[in-house]
Amino acid sequence: MTIQLYGFWRSNAAFRVRVALALKQLPFEEIEIDLLAGDQFETAYARVNAESVVPTLVHDGQRISQSLAIMEYLDERFPIHRLLPDAPLERAYARSLALISIADSHPFVVPRVRKHLAQTYGADAAAIEAWCRHWGREGLAAYERRLVERPPSPFAMGDSPTLADICIAGQMIIADLYQLDVTAFPRVGALAQRCFDLPAFANAHPFRQPGYRPSSH
Amino acid sequence: MTIQLYGFWRSNAAFRVRVALALKQLPFEEIEIDLLAGDQFETAYARVNAESVVPTLVHDGQRISQSLAIMEYLDERFPIHRLLPDAPLERAYARSLALISIADSHPFVVPRVRKHLAQTYGADAAAIEAWCRHWGREGLAAYERRLVERPPSPFAMGDSPTLADICIAGQMIIADLYQLDVTAFPRVGALAQRCFDLPAFANAHPFRQPGYRPSSH
Repeated sequence: MTIQLYGFWRSNAAFRVRVALALKQLPFEEIEIDLLAGDQFETAYARVNAESVVPTLVHDGQRISQSLAIMEYLDERFPIHRLLPDAPLERAYARSLALISIADSHPFVVPRVRKHLAQTYGADAAAIEAWCRHWGREGLAAYERRLVERPPSPFAMGDSPTLADICIAGQMIIADLYQLDVTAFPRVGALAQRCFDLPAFANAHPFRQPGYRPSSH
Repeated sequence: MTIQLYGFWRSNAAFRVRVALALKQLPFEEIEIDLLAGDQFETAYARVNAESVVPTLVHDGQRISQSLAIMEYLDERFPIHRLLPDAPLERAYARSLALISIADSHPFVVPRVRKHLAQTYGADAAAIEAWCRHWGREGLAAYERRLVERPPSPFAMGDSPTLADICIAGQMIIADLYQLDVTAFPRVGALAQRCFDLPAFANAHPFRQPGYRPSSH
């Protein structure tokens, strides 16, 4: 069996898949697509991923795109360390938490959006950073409000991280990238800390990737 | 059994859930949350949905948010008209198509983003409409590129609509709202037409909802 991951150090979505693969103890080769250089729009990668986004997972020659679809696929194929519980209502809760970052916060900070803001509104670096900080905070605030609805537990669904925790930890990476003050989000902060205490999360962090360049946050 | 849906006529995410409920022949009561009036931020609704977004599904008193989480839940609980196939790779394909709209296109056109553009960049109505048209087209183009990778079939996964088709039809609603020229996306157009020929899709369209107001596209 071979697994390849087309990713990029800065990509939040690639981070999610790296964590899922590590939790499931699946070895993989990562191929860097430099999103800041626009490599995702090159013909070679457009043949791999018609949407020109990362990540793409290639499992024994079969391509899968979109981080949530990849995590669900890995969970269905490799039952070691389940990323979703069994009960439909709890599965829905996990997915709804995951989607706060995937659908309602992270989309706003990706390179093609930052570029479009610059081209359309003439937004400079500071204005784009303010935009990213705004949506990063909105996501963290939504997570905090959701988490306090349930009694405290080490991870969102109990004693073991699920795909909800992967996405919450990913949202905290946006805070890391934009140096957000997270003191207003204590439940999120404590949960993310427990995640990043685990090697599967720590080693997947953007700042730990070979291609990481501090100057290009 | 009772099902309530907190939705809004204009909400693409509420449309998706309406279609899923109709395909599964599940009766439900819809409660309008007027997103254009800001009703989602009122205390009463914030208690229902801590993220202050629609839709929220309430099934026998249990609340579920996020349209994709809701559709997956309905599919797990109510096997009539399956929204996902059985094979993990095909399930991943369906979810990856769904997420093109859910994560990579629709997020940019929702009310809170349009409002933030106005507040942050002083974008006027025309500039906001151009923004929405841009991301609407990007989503349609991504769908067209994905669909031509497979041989033609009535729906994305064969002879019956799945949650991929629900999201593609939803993307076409963005084209309806912003009167986009869709001639460059023939596969998407034909697929959406087949969807809207079905009552489950046609009756869920924003323009068919009781609260629809043509002046507030």
